[in-house]
Amino acid sequence: MSKTMMGLLWTRDDLARMAEHVGSASRLGVTLDELGERVDDAMAAGIVVPGQGEAGSFEHNTHKHNGKLIEQAALVGRVREDSACLAVARDLLLAYAEIYRGMPYQVARNTNPPGKLFHQILNEQMWLLGASLGYSLLREDLSDDQRTRIEQGLFEPLLEMFTVTYEHDFDRIHNHGLWAVAAAGICALVIGRQDVVDKAILGNDGSGETGGFLAQIDTLFSADGYYVEGPYYHRFAIHPLCLFAEALALHRPELAIHERSDGRIGKSIRALLATAYPDGTFPALNDASRTMDIDDEGVRIALAVHIGRHGADPELVAMAAQQRGTWAHGFGVDLAEAVARSSASATIPSALLSDGAGGQAHLKQGEGAQRHHLVVAAGQHGMGHGHFDLLGLSLFSAGRERLNEYGYCRWVNVEPKFGGRYLAENEGYAKQSVAHNLVVVDQASQHRGDHRLADQSAGRIEQFVDRSDVDGVTAVCCSNDDAYPGVTLRRHCLLLTTELSEHPLLVDIVEASGHERHCYDYVFNFTGQVIKWWGGYAARDTLEVLGEADGYQHLWVVGEQRGSQDGPSSHAMTWLDGDRFITWHQRSQHPTNAMQLLVGANDPERNLRHEKKVMARSHAEATVFVNVFEQHGHFDEAHEACLNARPTLKSVEFDRLADERIEVRLTFPWRRETLVIDPNAASGSDYVSLKGGGYMK
Amino acid sequence: MSKTMMGLLWTRDDLARMAEHVGSASRLGVTLDELGERVDDAMAAGIVVPGQGEAGSFEHNTHKHNGKLIEQAALVGRVREDSACLAVARDLLLAYAEIYRGMPYQVARNTNPPGKLFHQILNEQMWLLGASLGYSLLREDLSDDQRTRIEQGLFEPLLEMFTVTYEHDFDRIHNHGLWAVAAAGICALVIGRQDVVDKAILGNDGSGETGGFLAQIDTLFSADGYYVEGPYYHRFAIHPLCLFAEALALHRPELAIHERSDGRIGKSIRALLATAYPDGTFPALNDASRTMDIDDEGVRIALAVHIGRHGADPELVAMAAQQRGTWAHGFGVDLAEAVARSSASATIPSALLSDGAGGQAHLKQGEGAQRHHLVVAAGQHGMGHGHFDLLGLSLFSAGRERLNEYGYCRWVNVEPKFGGRYLAENEGYAKQSVAHNLVVVDQASQHRGDHRLADQSAGRIEQFVDRSDVDGVTAVCCSNDDAYPGVTLRRHCLLLTTELSEHPLLVDIVEASGHERHCYDYVFNFTGQVIKWWGGYAARDTLEVLGEADGYQHLWVVGEQRGSQDGPSSHAMTWLDGDRFITWHQRSQHPTNAMQLLVGANDPERNLRHEKKVMARSHAEATVFVNVFEQHGHFDEAHEACLNARPTLKSVEFDRLADERIEVRLTFPWRRETLVIDPNAASGSDYVSLKGGGYMK
Repeated sequence: MSKTMMGLLWTRDDLARMAEHVGSASRLGVTLDELGERVDDAMAAGIVVPGQGEAGSFEHNTHKHNGKLIEQAALVGRVREDSACLAVARDLLLAYAEIYRGMPYQVARNTNPPGKLFHQILNEQMWLLGASLGYSLLREDLSDDQRTRIEQGLFEPLLEMFTVTYEHDFDRIHNHGLWAVAAAGICALVIGRQDVVDKAILGNDGSGETGGFLAQIDTLFSADGYYVEGPYYHRFAIHPLCLFAEALALHRPELAIHERSDGRIGKSIRALLATAYPDGTFPALNDASRTMDIDDEGVRIALAVHIGRHGADPELVAMAAQQRGTWAHGFGVDLAEAVARSSASATIPSALLSDGAGGQAHLKQGEGAQRHHLVVAAGQHGMGHGHFDLLGLSLFSAGRERLNEYGYCRWVNVEPKFGGRYLAENEGYAKQSVAHNLVVVDQASQHRGDHRLADQSAGRIEQFVDRSDVDGVTAVCCSNDDAYPGVTLRRHCLLLTTELSEHPLLVDIVEASGHERHCYDYVFNFTGQVIKWWGGYAARDTLEVLGEADGYQHLWVVGEQRGSQDGPSSHAMTWLDGDRFITWHQRSQHPTNAMQLLVGANDPERNLRHEKKVMARSHAEATVFVNVFEQHGHFDEAHEACLNARPTLKSVEFDRLADERIEVRLTFPWRRETLVIDPNAASGSDYVSLKGGGYMK
Repeated sequence: MSKTMMGLLWTRDDLARMAEHVGSASRLGVTLDELGERVDDAMAAGIVVPGQGEAGSFEHNTHKHNGKLIEQAALVGRVREDSACLAVARDLLLAYAEIYRGMPYQVARNTNPPGKLFHQILNEQMWLLGASLGYSLLREDLSDDQRTRIEQGLFEPLLEMFTVTYEHDFDRIHNHGLWAVAAAGICALVIGRQDVVDKAILGNDGSGETGGFLAQIDTLFSADGYYVEGPYYHRFAIHPLCLFAEALALHRPELAIHERSDGRIGKSIRALLATAYPDGTFPALNDASRTMDIDDEGVRIALAVHIGRHGADPELVAMAAQQRGTWAHGFGVDLAEAVARSSASATIPSALLSDGAGGQAHLKQGEGAQRHHLVVAAGQHGMGHGHFDLLGLSLFSAGRERLNEYGYCRWVNVEPKFGGRYLAENEGYAKQSVAHNLVVVDQASQHRGDHRLADQSAGRIEQFVDRSDVDGVTAVCCSNDDAYPGVTLRRHCLLLTTELSEHPLLVDIVEASGHERHCYDYVFNFTGQVIKWWGGYAARDTLEVLGEADGYQHLWVVGEQRGSQDGPSSHAMTWLDGDRFITWHQRSQHPTNAMQLLVGANDPERNLRHEKKVMARSHAEATVFVNVFEQHGHFDEAHEACLNARPTLKSVEFDRLADERIEVRLTFPWRRETLVIDPNAASGSDYVSLKGGGYMK
């Protein structure tokens, strides 16, 4: 075995260690078997290099597949020491080298410039990255002629496209920019174009400050490693980040890339992992699918890199155990071995991830499959992929998102859905404030739905405390006063584990303070079947559209529960979500009317999902909504077993005290619990006080 | 080890064989561990015998739990030879014996007479059955005094309730009647009341013809073993059927109960199993949940009895392998050993189950997880639990019901949902014809929605053929001419496996023939997201209710696609269901208007699920709808991979030929397939002819 390199990222020693996992049930064994099967299938089917096509077309999919296949076949060939596999990679490279220069550019379909194989250069960069890594594994066995044909026919024009033709795009501090520099940099390292390597590291102006990989590391992620576009794009950005970092760690060790910016790369990996729900899916903050998870290829690489570079932290090993496979690399061997060794489970604790201005709070309580995870968004907006959801929340427990994000409105790669691109309803509904779990003011989105305005704003984190091991309280207080001119919004979110309820309670208090009369809509999304609106409900026969703009035009009113018409108002509704009941209890300062809503109005192309919502509406200058979400009971339909379908919390009352403090009284059949919440507390331990006053019976 | 009995249904030998499975991963080991855990939990918590309560209440659930616990604790005690477990069963029996005589009757809540522990005697009979089996395992260890207290205080009044107080109910040929005779008969066998045993076997009049177990066997199930209420109630009826049959096989062997009526019990077990979808769930024919499956306790017992009595048929062993556990009995040992021995998988083939008048067609193609299962209902109505769904169908493939039944409108045991009983919307929507996948005439339900009229009718099976191994055709033709006076309905349903499509095509032809002008609504239910209505679609902003009665009052119109307004009409719509695309192609003889519908209007208590439907409407004296459901492609959202989101079938055309024959031409890009369908064919092989005429390109 040897420490000498084979290809850009592997040593001969790594490849030998990897070979030992082939056919095993380890994470790496699973990956190598999958890769082996794909390469075997490709050899059986024969390689195909088609012409140009639309996103989602056969041509598009085949080019995408081929780009990965070049790397996979080369890697499998080296692991198996099988020249037939290597030949697949070589023949693909030669075939593309034959046609690439002569291929015309596609027509631009979005703001991303067009490539030749794909309609946006982002895909072309991803393709180049895989092809370059594959080529690096082959290069030493090729003839001079073959090398020349591949480098001159394929890689040189690709590098020219990215660094000359689209030079203006190369320095963009953005996830696309990261792919651009990583792809160009890796390709240039492989074919020995040091000038391009330098440009990829230092940017067009060579300063390392306005563009290039170093600037991306320094400025794309916050000091905590948070990525402003949210976890969905973070896991996409971390893929080229980790690959190019490894290439530079090996081939430009003098850069000490992993130490850069106080270990920013490692922090970024940890920040991403901290956002994942207990089942491994990422909360759909900003534009995002609701199914993206830690088994994504980028996260596989990131976890392996972290374990390889920083050791087998038990929390990360436990996450690796949730993945199906890992990175086919020496670090994948390290990870697989760490998973095999580990027995105890560990979880990443509650975290406040600062994004440099505001932050994202991740409140977690409970263990294993019962773990609760509450996300409160109080950070920056997220640029073009941002949603107008400042102070929004989402709640996950026992395998399901209970108060759910809608996510983006898009079916990636589904060609009949507008070529798989973002749909009009993404702007029309998904991004708008009303699509989220928060209070909407005057039926309008935050910052007038203007990304430029929103990008200048952020949430303010006023308190964050995790006392889950002490008295069962994990809580955050956040606020904002520029999303709506003249209105200050403050939200207190608490997870509360006590002996009073089966599962942690979510106590959610929103204070909205304006100087004029406003319409305040407390909104939340839910999934499942309404069991009962406690205290009456009037169903609508004909469904009318709720509003005219800012997402309201996409909502139908299904029915309503009128609260008190003078003085404070109460609502309660129980629904069944999977096998668990959830009851929303609300007490509000002013009269409210609660509506059950359905998403899907004004949707000519059927691009919206028919999801359920509740909206409680108050008109006031300033008001308070105190909400408790109580999870209870169990329903097993197949076995026809049911327990505790009714909530146990009997009433929610509150008073506003001096100094912005709020006292909340929760009355259960057996006793009352009183919370005093003080946003101005000097320390987290004083922010929330529990004054549960003895048993009532 | 010994063949002598221990309790009513177990030998000492059985108990010793069962003990060997404790802690093992076999089906029986899993069951014994679950039972052991429940008994251990009960011992730790202490036994509780509460007063009376509503369905779904703590009291109701506790009594239900206790009835099972008596049997479970006694059985676990015998398997473990643990007197503490036996004491749990004994103490429960003594506690109930103390209070039972003095307990008042509950108030009747439905057509079922009230019991004392429960609001309907059905539950009380189920309770008695478990308690009697448990007592049979204890009896020999009890003192005379204990026996007297239990038999006089508990079992005698229960037997009196069922056979004297409710004597009028004891002879009912119905699933409740089966529970009544099995519970009384088993209890009477245990406590030696031969008069009641005889009554349970032969009925009130002693003839064995109008009531009692023998009459139930002879008349409750068809000669094919089919149970007219459908699989959901069949699996419920088979539970007491198998238990009492085993008791009589052991203690009244001269009855040769398993040979009775040409082996009716075994046929009934096989018929039930033949109806199960490939994933083990039962199609929701008539009143039924959509999640009931073969892991139900009754089916566990039935499968074990069949394997124990008739040997380890590979098809049944494969189904046993789909169950999580089995019957804690000697036959459960046989089953567990058969599962452990078996390697090959086998599946129950397509079947036409005659119900004595019409029949239920189960068309199956494909293997394993890819197996398709089409159910066509052309039998009798199903009494009070019947739905008005003659000639309705449902389709299952790859783990999901694609053209789905709505099932019943009920949340069993969910107390805030009307005590867990049937909801008004079960009559209002779920039972009505429009809730199903069929053609509704004049916006009215079949047989005017009158159960008595419907019970006098049945479908007529005209053809049934399974040539899946020959030319890929499995097909059924069925008809009816009295569901709507003056209108004859005929439906041809074909599953068709060819090289033309990825998955079997469903070709569905409905001919509706009246002498006056009628409104014909072709309706189907689907799940998932509409991808595209091919050829235009107009969305509605305000959702209006579709109709006024017969289920139409619960439907909103979401949008519509207008077909040709003169001459034949075509429609096509693709939706995404899970990870698969499905396209509905329709060609109809007359102009049609296709509507997308949403369930949920006029639902003051939110008892309906918001499900999706399509309805294509024609006005004509007689017309034909030719439909093809094409499953295609793949979408993996988490991995953002998509293939073949567009259908490949380009057009559907048809002609009516002489002699009621129909020619259907399916045009694919690569060739055309022509089907000639002849309902009057003398043999199944001539019913459907494939005339695929060579490649078109």
